[in-house]
Amino acid sequence: MEKKTRNLIFGLFWMLLASSNLCIDGLNIWPMPSSLKYGAKTLYLSKDFGLDTVGSKYVDASSTLKDAFQRLLDIVETAHAIDTNSTYYNPSLLLKGMRVVISSPNDELQFGVDESYKLSIPSSGNPIYATLEAPTLYGALHGLQTFSQLCHFNFTTRIIEVRQAPWNIIDQPRFSYRGLLIDTSRHYQPLPIIKNVIDAMAYTKLNVLHWHIVDTQSFPLEIPSYPKLWNGAYSPSERYTMADAAEIVNYAKRQGINVLAELDVPGHALSWGIGYPSLWPSSDCPEPLDVSNEFTFKLIDGVLSDFSKVFNFKFVHLGGDEVDTSCWVMTPHVRKWLTKHGLNETEAYQYFVLRAQQIAISHGYEIINWEETFNNFGNKLSRKTVVHNWLGGGVAQQVVAAGLRCIVSNQDKWYLDHLDITWQQFYMNEPLTNITNLQQQKLVIGGEVCMWGETVDGSDIEQTIWPRAAAAAGN
Amino acid sequence: MEKKTRNLIFGLFWMLLASSNLCIDGLNIWPMPSSLKYGAKTLYLSKDFGLDTVGSKYVDASSTLKDAFQRLLDIVETAHAIDTNSTYYNPSLLLKGMRVVISSPNDELQFGVDESYKLSIPSSGNPIYATLEAPTLYGALHGLQTFSQLCHFNFTTRIIEVRQAPWNIIDQPRFSYRGLLIDTSRHYQPLPIIKNVIDAMAYTKLNVLHWHIVDTQSFPLEIPSYPKLWNGAYSPSERYTMADAAEIVNYAKRQGINVLAELDVPGHALSWGIGYPSLWPSSDCPEPLDVSNEFTFKLIDGVLSDFSKVFNFKFVHLGGDEVDTSCWVMTPHVRKWLTKHGLNETEAYQYFVLRAQQIAISHGYEIINWEETFNNFGNKLSRKTVVHNWLGGGVAQQVVAAGLRCIVSNQDKWYLDHLDITWQQFYMNEPLTNITNLQQQKLVIGGEVCMWGETVDGSDIEQTIWPRAAAAAGN
Repeated sequence: MEKKTRNLIFGLFWMLLASSNLCIDGLNIWPMPSSLKYGAKTLYLSKDFGLDTVGSKYVDASSTLKDAFQRLLDIVETAHAIDTNSTYYNPSLLLKGMRVVISSPNDELQFGVDESYKLSIPSSGNPIYATLEAPTLYGALHGLQTFSQLCHFNFTTRIIEVRQAPWNIIDQPRFSYRGLLIDTSRHYQPLPIIKNVIDAMAYTKLNVLHWHIVDTQSFPLEIPSYPKLWNGAYSPSERYTMADAAEIVNYAKRQGINVLAELDVPGHALSWGIGYPSLWPSSDCPEPLDVSNEFTFKLIDGVLSDFSKVFNFKFVHLGGDEVDTSCWVMTPHVRKWLTKHGLNETEAYQYFVLRAQQIAISHGYEIINWEETFNNFGNKLSRKTVVHNWLGGGVAQQVVAAGLRCIVSNQDKWYLDHLDITWQQFYMNEPLTNITNLQQQKLVIGGEVCMWGETVDGSDIEQTIWPRAAAAAGN
Repeated sequence: MEKKTRNLIFGLFWMLLASSNLCIDGLNIWPMPSSLKYGAKTLYLSKDFGLDTVGSKYVDASSTLKDAFQRLLDIVETAHAIDTNSTYYNPSLLLKGMRVVISSPNDELQFGVDESYKLSIPSSGNPIYATLEAPTLYGALHGLQTFSQLCHFNFTTRIIEVRQAPWNIIDQPRFSYRGLLIDTSRHYQPLPIIKNVIDAMAYTKLNVLHWHIVDTQSFPLEIPSYPKLWNGAYSPSERYTMADAAEIVNYAKRQGINVLAELDVPGHALSWGIGYPSLWPSSDCPEPLDVSNEFTFKLIDGVLSDFSKVFNFKFVHLGGDEVDTSCWVMTPHVRKWLTKHGLNETEAYQYFVLRAQQIAISHGYEIINWEETFNNFGNKLSRKTVVHNWLGGGVAQQVVAAGLRCIVSNQDKWYLDHLDITWQQFYMNEPLTNITNLQQQKLVIGGEVCMWGETVDGSDIEQTIWPRAAAAAGN
């Protein structure tokens, strides 16, 4: 039988963890649930361990729960051929199946969806069933991941064991936004690799894939409204069609993961002008995007219109970082425009960012911008803005004091391309540092680890993300 | 839709190759077939491109061909969401399906099986069908791989194209034995990784996975007759059950790949004594296996008996390399035994190897041994021996002159752990160097590239094997 080989690198990390006999008395659950109790009995997973949804209000027309349950079975088998020798176990300790009871029929995945769950595994019964209760499908998916981590393949008996029963676990995430950034501009990342990253995010209960799609180096994504944009791809084959993007969004949703698309403007956009050179101030001085050209904003409107048909997360990321405006003043027609409108460089940068924000809002999005926008003109930003920290510590406290929401990604602790940062440092980074006011704490919607793409391609991105991203997920 | 993500690293290598527009007039086929003719028309793969086996004598009860055809479709889609815009193509150029006609009903995979095939793709027809003819299933599997390399995903039209039709390809391998060694003793390699390696071998038409299972460092495989042997595994979870081994053998067979199991004796076997210390001359001087102990040979007999139930390739590899016999003379009871039997060190080494050969023969195997056995006592080896070169060039010509068969793996060119050897050097290595006699040439049954495991684990073995192993496969 051929089995689906899902995320290999990280899956194997879990397999070793899950099947190790080294920590019989330890707890191999990651991230650690909010609350748990356990006992000392060993149960045995039935060969026909099954899913029972009696009493669940969620009907699973999309087979999302059913597929997740099948993935659970694949995980607990740890890729081994299971040839259980039934002479080894006591039938009264057989775990026959799992009852999954979901309260909501709705499987819309949106920001702030209830991701909590309760998992209980009794140590007796006739037969024994585990029970997983969750307000939503997405809490239940987390509960299945936790259950998989309680299972151990015993190489002697060929039985999958659940040790330390009975179990009672109650869990909910500390933050609503638990992100991982990937960057497909500096290196093209093939679709199967992106899917592997998504699979592994689900193992650690991360819930936002921040897709930094395009940048200065390349523009791999098809934009139907402006079909020459992907002329900026590295090669004809290093491209994503919009149908590919839709498949990634759907694939992620089925694991409870939102996709946050980023359009980093006005800097980080040189590749846009390969197809549409008029977006450049000039071919000699091509970045940032030409603030003086109405076509620039017309095109951004078209891109965000196309985005809104596929990227249905509440937020879009508009970048706004590292904007060097010198090409604006060095290019005659742009300088003339600045003079005409009485704008200095910083004001023009502000004008660009705020106008892009309004376009995004017109397409139904709330906005995430990198912290330079806040640092330069924080009080002018739309109140629908979430400020994305990256430069260092201490920013979140200023953002939330100003009443805006914040995501923490301080590069000294949560940049995965900084290879010298240890997993322990990832684990110890605290998004709420120096924020004591409860209302302000709530404005920190979460954190994100960033896998910038300059030095990783499909051959090493997974090995570079994990296990350090999992350490952050344990925060 | 979730898709099976097969071998990622190497698959992506092919995807880039297969979907590149850079070589419209080039040939993206690897290895290059024996003979080919092609034209200048572009055909389009039908969305319901199907398999037709009318006239085939092979009934495919195991779904091997059907599954291979499905993998072909996955490969040619290059992981993209296919949303063909049918306005782009001329219906008379639609390639509707493939007729696969296999002459033999037998799907036994053995050494020397006919792997030839003929693939023809006409450029007209009503509708157009490709035809793949092969004497055996295993030739047909190669033909499917070749066909996949003729397909290109066109990012503009969203159609999979077959360019340069009509095609007429006739192909058969130059050597019967085209091997790749993996080593699961120096690093445990998880089962999904081994399966990925097998998938990628099929892309390049390699046909023997030489599984160097155990060595000094660890003994990961279950041996039912001697259950303490895998006490020598690195950890309780870094193990393969014999059911796992059977699954690997079956998985490989379904891709036309034999699994050659190796038991490297009498050296390279320290880990055996973790479970059975009496195999060691002494715990202070534990290697090679104790030649004076009848239990050593009784155990080898048990291991090979267990092997023969699962590893059904014609050959078993008995190692025999790098035997340092000093522990035999330094350990009193072994030295005493040597004296009693009038054997010097080299004679004892020969005694061990020949006795192990006879045990293997008694279980129905022919034998492969590393070249030191030939270099030391070549004229004493069983005529059923294939000598496996590794130390350097020039050995094959001596082996075949002595009338024995040979496999070429000279480490200066075909050791994948030698990271400084370029793919060009892999490609240029010639197994028949200085062998001009036709009968002697036939005794070189093939070559093998070796991925020794000291420096690779599941995170980098694939990236280290490919693309250099593919370069050798093109030889």
